[in-house]
Amino acid sequence: MKTSGDKTFRIGIAGATGYTGEELLRLLAGHPFAEIAFLTSEKEQGQPARAVFPQFTFLAERRFISARQAADVEADLVFLCLPHGQSAQLAISFIEKNIKVIDLGADFRFYNADDYKKWYQQEHPFPVLLRTTVYGLPEWHRDDIKKAVYVGNPGCYPTSVLLAVLPFVAGGLLGSGPVIIDAKSGVSGAGKSPAPATHFVSVNENLNAYKPGRTHRHVGEMEQEIALVFGQLRRVIFTPHLVPMSRGIFSTIYLPLNKSRTKEEFLVILHEKYDAEPFVHVLDDQMPSTSMAAHTNHCFLSLEAVPGTDYAILFSAIDNLGKGASSQAVQNMNLMLDLPETAGLLSAM
Amino acid sequence: MKTSGDKTFRIGIAGATGYTGEELLRLLAGHPFAEIAFLTSEKEQGQPARAVFPQFTFLAERRFISARQAADVEADLVFLCLPHGQSAQLAISFIEKNIKVIDLGADFRFYNADDYKKWYQQEHPFPVLLRTTVYGLPEWHRDDIKKAVYVGNPGCYPTSVLLAVLPFVAGGLLGSGPVIIDAKSGVSGAGKSPAPATHFVSVNENLNAYKPGRTHRHVGEMEQEIALVFGQLRRVIFTPHLVPMSRGIFSTIYLPLNKSRTKEEFLVILHEKYDAEPFVHVLDDQMPSTSMAAHTNHCFLSLEAVPGTDYAILFSAIDNLGKGASSQAVQNMNLMLDLPETAGLLSAM
Amino acid sequence: MKTSGDKTFRIGIAGATGYTGEELLRLLAGHPFAEIAFLTSEKEQGQPARAVFPQFTFLAERRFISARQAADVEADLVFLCLPHGQSAQLAISFIEKNIKVIDLGADFRFYNADDYKKWYQQEHPFPVLLRTTVYGLPEWHRDDIKKAVYVGNPGCYPTSVLLAVLPFVAGGLLGSGPVIIDAKSGVSGAGKSPAPATHFVSVNENLNAYKPGRTHRHVGEMEQEIALVFGQLRRVIFTPHLVPMSRGIFSTIYLPLNKSRTKEEFLVILHEKYDAEPFVHVLDDQMPSTSMAAHTNHCFLSLEAVPGTDYAILFSAIDNLGKGASSQAVQNMNLMLDLPETAGLLSAM
Amino acid sequence: MKTSGDKTFRIGIAGATGYTGEELLRLLAGHPFAEIAFLTSEKEQGQPARAVFPQFTFLAERRFISARQAADVEADLVFLCLPHGQSAQLAISFIEKNIKVIDLGADFRFYNADDYKKWYQQEHPFPVLLRTTVYGLPEWHRDDIKKAVYVGNPGCYPTSVLLAVLPFVAGGLLGSGPVIIDAKSGVSGAGKSPAPATHFVSVNENLNAYKPGRTHRHVGEMEQEIALVFGQLRRVIFTPHLVPMSRGIFSTIYLPLNKSRTKEEFLVILHEKYDAEPFVHVLDDQMPSTSMAAHTNHCFLSLEAVPGTDYAILFSAIDNLGKGASSQAVQNMNLMLDLPETAGLLSAM
Repeated sequence: MKTSGDKTFRIGIAGATGYTGEELLRLLAGHPFAEIAFLTSEKEQGQPARAVFPQFTFLAERRFISARQAADVEADLVFLCLPHGQSAQLAISFIEKNIKVIDLGADFRFYNADDYKKWYQQEHPFPVLLRTTVYGLPEWHRDDIKKAVYVGNPGCYPTSVLLAVLPFVAGGLLGSGPVIIDAKSGVSGAGKSPAPATHFVSVNENLNAYKPGRTHRHVGEMEQEIALVFGQLRRVIFTPHLVPMSRGIFSTIYLPLNKSRTKEEFLVILHEKYDAEPFVHVLDDQMPSTSMAAHTNHCFLSLEAVPGTDYAILFSAIDNLGKGASSQAVQNMNLMLDLPETAGLLSAM
Repeated sequence: MKTSGDKTFRIGIAGATGYTGEELLRLLAGHPFAEIAFLTSEKEQGQPARAVFPQFTFLAERRFISARQAADVEADLVFLCLPHGQSAQLAISFIEKNIKVIDLGADFRFYNADDYKKWYQQEHPFPVLLRTTVYGLPEWHRDDIKKAVYVGNPGCYPTSVLLAVLPFVAGGLLGSGPVIIDAKSGVSGAGKSPAPATHFVSVNENLNAYKPGRTHRHVGEMEQEIALVFGQLRRVIFTPHLVPMSRGIFSTIYLPLNKSRTKEEFLVILHEKYDAEPFVHVLDDQMPSTSMAAHTNHCFLSLEAVPGTDYAILFSAIDNLGKGASSQAVQNMNLMLDLPETAGLLSAM
Repeated sequence: MKTSGDKTFRIGIAGATGYTGEELLRLLAGHPFAEIAFLTSEKEQGQPARAVFPQFTFLAERRFISARQAADVEADLVFLCLPHGQSAQLAISFIEKNIKVIDLGADFRFYNADDYKKWYQQEHPFPVLLRTTVYGLPEWHRDDIKKAVYVGNPGCYPTSVLLAVLPFVAGGLLGSGPVIIDAKSGVSGAGKSPAPATHFVSVNENLNAYKPGRTHRHVGEMEQEIALVFGQLRRVIFTPHLVPMSRGIFSTIYLPLNKSRTKEEFLVILHEKYDAEPFVHVLDDQMPSTSMAAHTNHCFLSLEAVPGTDYAILFSAIDNLGKGASSQAVQNMNLMLDLPETAGLLSAM
Repeated sequence: MKTSGDKTFRIGIAGATGYTGEELLRLLAGHPFAEIAFLTSEKEQGQPARAVFPQFTFLAERRFISARQAADVEADLVFLCLPHGQSAQLAISFIEKNIKVIDLGADFRFYNADDYKKWYQQEHPFPVLLRTTVYGLPEWHRDDIKKAVYVGNPGCYPTSVLLAVLPFVAGGLLGSGPVIIDAKSGVSGAGKSPAPATHFVSVNENLNAYKPGRTHRHVGEMEQEIALVFGQLRRVIFTPHLVPMSRGIFSTIYLPLNKSRTKEEFLVILHEKYDAEPFVHVLDDQMPSTSMAAHTNHCFLSLEAVPGTDYAILFSAIDNLGKGASSQAVQNMNLMLDLPETAGLLSAM
């Protein structure tokens, strides 16, 4: 869909064989200002990309290369789809060459190395990089993202949660007690490596929780961003669940309030924040569902006040590989490359 | 599987064509002390039962009859699988003939007619019957069930929630603030009537919440039974979700505590209550999952303490058509007929 | 994604609330040369389109209108997504106004009214229209489609089957005996109206066949198009199956041959026909799967020779709502409006 | 459910951690004449069985032992759930101790070692054992099974196919040309080991074929048993498909006939063969479906004649872990131990 005359940017993907890499490829194929510079895979290097992605006929004869080989390829921006720890190492080499970097992993999501170590149980490889961390949630950090050289793309759960919670924190409505988040995710969130827990027969006709309370690493991101707006730490209780579907995150958030309000008053707060946003949509009379958001960069929000209690319940639906990962990464790319923020992201609506 | 010489009881099912009727049939087929007296369906009366249930070859030539016809059939106990309001009407006719009744609907779950009216938006047809309501949760009302002439079989969500919550209420651990319950159910809980919301394409690859906060009718049952143990009303916030699976309920319960305790201390409370129970199982080191409970009368429980907060998270998994409906009804039948409580319920374990 | 300066065509959709209408909307939203002229629904007329499709935020305040109202709206081309019989009636009114028509139903798929009557058990409303039927399978009728005023968009099963079979018929390889087709479809092929057979609990963890042999209406289309190439009738045995997935058709075709050949010789036949086609892809060493084709206009083909027999087995995978319906309709639209054939259809690859 | 006074047999399971072992455990738990003697697992030896099967509360404190340890445990019959090649080795040790053996693998399914080698690409470890092979399909080899010391339990696909096809072969109706079998299986048929092809995201919303034509090992079994009845080899073309469901096999069989007959005439043939059978059910006016057979030992059959052709289409539905594996193994156990053939197999109907 590239129009002749348009400037196109050369985009690399490091670690391109996983689910987020696949989704990035799908999105970049339809992006009017992007072309693929390289795809890396240490395991599949030398192999044709279509052996892994037969459905992407546009890839033609392109082959995976190693990260080492990618260092010699000209590029304007690189997406890193790598395990934490590895991203920071590779990022340095691109940053030094003035290639912009968006890390879909966790290495650039924290503002200080102590938090990284606390939640990821290892030292950050290059803590100096965290001094200028930009947390890539455009609706809350747009200006910083535009100026950033490297961006930490948010985790899937935090994206769904923060978009719902932050307007109320910013509005000074947060009451006492923990924010309770009950989240449900499709299986692609668990990654592509085969494991007993992701075998079809284990997942199908089944549902359970995992890493409940304060044990999931995404708690760190959520508390960091809430504290940034709230001014101090507010504890989060977070329980993710594995649902028999491939894609989608639905977060149900039990928010303690400092004052009882009506549903209508709460809706005003969301509308004021998001009505001008292209990718966050507030539903007044309807429940969001993950299928609304599937294969898009949209987040759908709604809420209910709970009469007789000091709680509101917030509902947030995204595609964990969309707004929860790859399409949000493209949104960040558009901002970093000074392109229209929605470029390549609205066609599938 | 009936052994000659055993006494068998004649069991009727009113409203036998739905999911709970089907599950009762499956269970009674393997029950050593039960035989089918009749199956009613107003819509299918006169039709062979195997036209609806081709898989139940043991039904041979049996046909559905009307409820009116059933009045002339001898029976020892009748299961009512009817919409609320209809059950009470039909129950009277059986009770007058000294036939015991287990209602899988809501007409005999409340201790007073005001609560029934509040949650079901209609007058109870025979409020006098509610004076001797027995709420058919055997682990908490076993002695009353044994003596009962009619029993209200608990709702699916309340069963999963109350088994987890009540030991802590009884133990005096409940803190201030609402009990927050986030529940997830398979689609059979929505009944067999085709509707846009239960179309395969609507449910598959999708998840959302419905009737959140204090709008679902099962809130009434939960608050009634918690109040019975707690001595006063304690509000519940309850959000059910529809999950792309056929069977199973998983409840995640955020329980406010009056004192911080360790996971081990909490486990003691569950073990003391349930270790002698045949159908409630406490998992110390493992998360329950709905597939564990599928096609059984089991409930699996576990929990986590949340350090730094006054909350514990309880996890409860049942089969919504098993312990959440039909197999719990058979457990109640066994108690009411003075049979071994596990008769016909352990073979599929 | 419309670029200023581009000519855009005004496109109407009649019967826009079903699955094919929804998919057309998704595709037209990203089409560089199309804009929505109107959406009709007799049932939902006057309602906001986003009440049915909350995910299509681009629809903004647009409302459904009646077909009668649509007659007053200017348009260049109309897609008909209506039950057979109704399409032809409405088509006339558009054709008379020089508005081009693509019927996603069956009213313009047959070359004569007898065949229509045979397979649809009713008289064709306007048999004269059938004299210039163009069967909208671009890979086999491209030139006729370009010149057509109205086109019958092929059925989903026939599309998957004919793309695989016709090259061998054209190549003179067809042996004696029936062509045996065993096809498997996702549930969206059964339409959006709720019914017992499409209830989630009926479909999930289940598979069966329906309308086997020569009873499914799509047999007529297949035999018509095979006869057109073969020069005479060749009977088809066709068994469709309902699979617990939302989208996708996989056809397994047992093709009798007049001469044994190697897999490599067969592949040459497919490659010669399709290597220049943008939407039909021949896989030499890999089995197609429906997920490859999901949400695209692609058809993936492969085959195996069966040593020791006179049969080849052909495999064909499409998205039943994509190449099997709406994206093929857009491909036809592109041809009829003299646009690039792939316009709006490659971005999601 | 054991009744005091009944004789119980001690049953061992070698390789008990897989899907067939799990299903055997479920069935034996409810079997009136069976008790568990041992469960082996080389990988999990020493571990509590409930660590693998938390749902089987009846297992209490039982632990897995090694096959070597099992040699010292008294037993009446052993089920082998092991990879081919390993079964025969272990079987010898049990047979020598007069312990009966049912092998759920392929080592005792062939009547001669050449066929075994042809389909399994390895020498049979103890070809002498094959001289007295009994193919454990009770409806066709009941008398031999009753007298057998060891039995080869049929493969899942062959069970579904042979029950449908053999009555027509025996009746002399087979025409010329290959028998074409298009089979669809749930994912448990692929085994419990995690692999890319069985990852939830790979299977969900997807369908494809594998090992088509004459490449799947089960072709050997089918041709052997057809030849036994037909008197000579008749080639089979067989294409299995992987379906997004956990359990169930549906086989659609295109059977060439030597004479055209009506559906009613064909039904007579099936009824005559199977009406006295407890586990094979002929549906006259209804299509079988895999959900009918789920969690049972039943096979449901139906058919259609195809007017104008020399073909009938047969439909066969079983549970691949039921009649296709473990419950058929229990049926064979009942025959070998001179128990009622349906013992422990009808309760879940």
